[in-house]
Amino acid sequence: MEEWLRVTYRVTAAAVDIEQRAGAIALEQSVEMALEAVTNPWVREHVVGRVESITDCGDGSFLVVINLSTVTVGDNPAQLLSMLFGNVSLQGDVELVDAELPPSILALFAGPNHGLAGLRRIAGGRQGPLTCSALKPQGAPVAELAELCRRLAGAGIDVIKDDHGLADQSPAPFSQRVKACQHAVASSGTGAAYAPSVVGTPRQVADQLAVAEGEGVQVVLVAPMVYGLPAFAQLAGDHPDLAFLGHPAFAGTGRIAPALLLGRLFRLYGADAVIFPNFGGRFAFSPVQCTALAEAARGSWGAIGPALPVPAGGMSVERVGEMLDFYGPDVMLLISGDLLNSPDIDKRARQFVTAVEATRS
Amino acid sequence: MEEWLRVTYRVTAAAVDIEQRAGAIALEQSVEMALEAVTNPWVREHVVGRVESITDCGDGSFLVVINLSTVTVGDNPAQLLSMLFGNVSLQGDVELVDAELPPSILALFAGPNHGLAGLRRIAGGRQGPLTCSALKPQGAPVAELAELCRRLAGAGIDVIKDDHGLADQSPAPFSQRVKACQHAVASSGTGAAYAPSVVGTPRQVADQLAVAEGEGVQVVLVAPMVYGLPAFAQLAGDHPDLAFLGHPAFAGTGRIAPALLLGRLFRLYGADAVIFPNFGGRFAFSPVQCTALAEAARGSWGAIGPALPVPAGGMSVERVGEMLDFYGPDVMLLISGDLLNSPDIDKRARQFVTAVEATRS
Repeated sequence: MEEWLRVTYRVTAAAVDIEQRAGAIALEQSVEMALEAVTNPWVREHVVGRVESITDCGDGSFLVVINLSTVTVGDNPAQLLSMLFGNVSLQGDVELVDAELPPSILALFAGPNHGLAGLRRIAGGRQGPLTCSALKPQGAPVAELAELCRRLAGAGIDVIKDDHGLADQSPAPFSQRVKACQHAVASSGTGAAYAPSVVGTPRQVADQLAVAEGEGVQVVLVAPMVYGLPAFAQLAGDHPDLAFLGHPAFAGTGRIAPALLLGRLFRLYGADAVIFPNFGGRFAFSPVQCTALAEAARGSWGAIGPALPVPAGGMSVERVGEMLDFYGPDVMLLISGDLLNSPDIDKRARQFVTAVEATRS
Repeated sequence: MEEWLRVTYRVTAAAVDIEQRAGAIALEQSVEMALEAVTNPWVREHVVGRVESITDCGDGSFLVVINLSTVTVGDNPAQLLSMLFGNVSLQGDVELVDAELPPSILALFAGPNHGLAGLRRIAGGRQGPLTCSALKPQGAPVAELAELCRRLAGAGIDVIKDDHGLADQSPAPFSQRVKACQHAVASSGTGAAYAPSVVGTPRQVADQLAVAEGEGVQVVLVAPMVYGLPAFAQLAGDHPDLAFLGHPAFAGTGRIAPALLLGRLFRLYGADAVIFPNFGGRFAFSPVQCTALAEAARGSWGAIGPALPVPAGGMSVERVGEMLDFYGPDVMLLISGDLLNSPDIDKRARQFVTAVEATRS
């Protein structure tokens, strides 16, 4: 049975132009040439993209659903990105808002290694919402970062991750930092997990993971759009024992709906958890976008296991109750600045943990 | 001597807010926490980002120049992307418009393997502007694509590249296609080069390159934003004999200036040539953006060799004169649809080549 991808774009256009525009997108994202010039009848029947529907949003934009043949993906996780948002990514009037992938495409991906339930197990086995905080700032020496680990783990934080700004810089070289921080967290006896930031070319990251796994690390932080989604998929597949926290750095560059890019695609390519900007913080995502993103990350999706949504970005401990009402128990709250800016980090971190624990009962 | 990156963002903000907003960006892109909470004096002095200048553009936006410490990059080509446009990529009011990279950062990169002059040598050694066309459509069998190669090479086209829609799909599997197309082009005796599209995870791409190099291919097409810029840098470094055409698929026109992303960064990470949408075609780039992009690709830039700009996207043979007046001789014109849509492809391709040759004398 022939299968097609159903891809939804939001197109800004005049009503009189939208049919032509939709048809042009169907061609641009498939054969990339005029239909008249496609002389091969098999290509016209099985490869040329099709406009399924056009819906007027009433705000000067239209939702255009295009069907793309699975043949065009060629069982290739990188080619999927070109098919979804290749050339039309360069057209300022087009946004990629959704993609329904048929089973043969989903079957190309393993999805999260551990996902929501597995990450919960790795990070101490607690039910209900989890807590996460970040080591900062860049430039701090290893001893300071390890001391921060000890304090955050001691307060009962479940996952303590490197800031994505931490790489292999001279003030805190990767191998020394990972050894010291992993030791500090593991020796806290709370079951907390330390997640170092791995960043670099595939070869650099392989070296970093060898160091991290050698120290007993089970969770790492990666920014899939910095690293490249196809390389990320290979990385996750090569390290089935590791859980990957997906960081959104460099991911705001295009015009792809956050729920699709950070929720669905990060998960598909192997993120066990997805960090994203919560509404009401330093970033501009709306509550509707955040709900859609969380559901894209953890909702049922064939054989692709759920990932853990991790709202973050300028959150305070006072917002814990509101955030848990909003996201429910299958979530990990990431609060760092509010803890680190406090005159008593230990106390503030315990307040964070206590506020979350209060909702577990 | 301490070195800093000079990064320019365009920020949409009210005049009354811009100083605070600029300061927040300097923190977000460095220590990612409140300045008051940065207690380590060395970090405050050497790592915290600094606002260098704020310029009112008079249109509700401001150009904000931020200095970021080279320490934060940690000699890591992936981390550079996070430093330039990590978290602020998620803030809709911020665009990345320029980046001045000090010598210690440039020294992390080899840049193009062959660049403008080398690609010219590989593709037949002609002086002046070069010609390029693309094999289409996806779904066509190997024999059709190889026949198209024969015709385009016969007409005198310098570089014949796969459409970026071609991967390893069943109608034209990669190894069969590359063998047939490379043979067709090489046996034309014109000195033309065939550039297959390589796409996939790093392992898939390594396998594809082994096939291509085995067939004598010297130029390949990669979409660096699909593949991942750090993985692309490693790939180019691992294959010093190959020239890489950078394709803009998945690169969006979101909020990184095209000249910076497609011109400067693609070049820095190893593109020998950079394909980009010409003004007046199917895409929305302006003449000013195209000039900036071409100069970013080929202008003098320390030890990083020049890359060849390749304007493309809905161009016709009738525009050759205008385009060469605009870009000058250090350019490769990519025209495909206009040739393939013609009832006489050979004749139309010869017209393209003749129009370009007329300007060589």
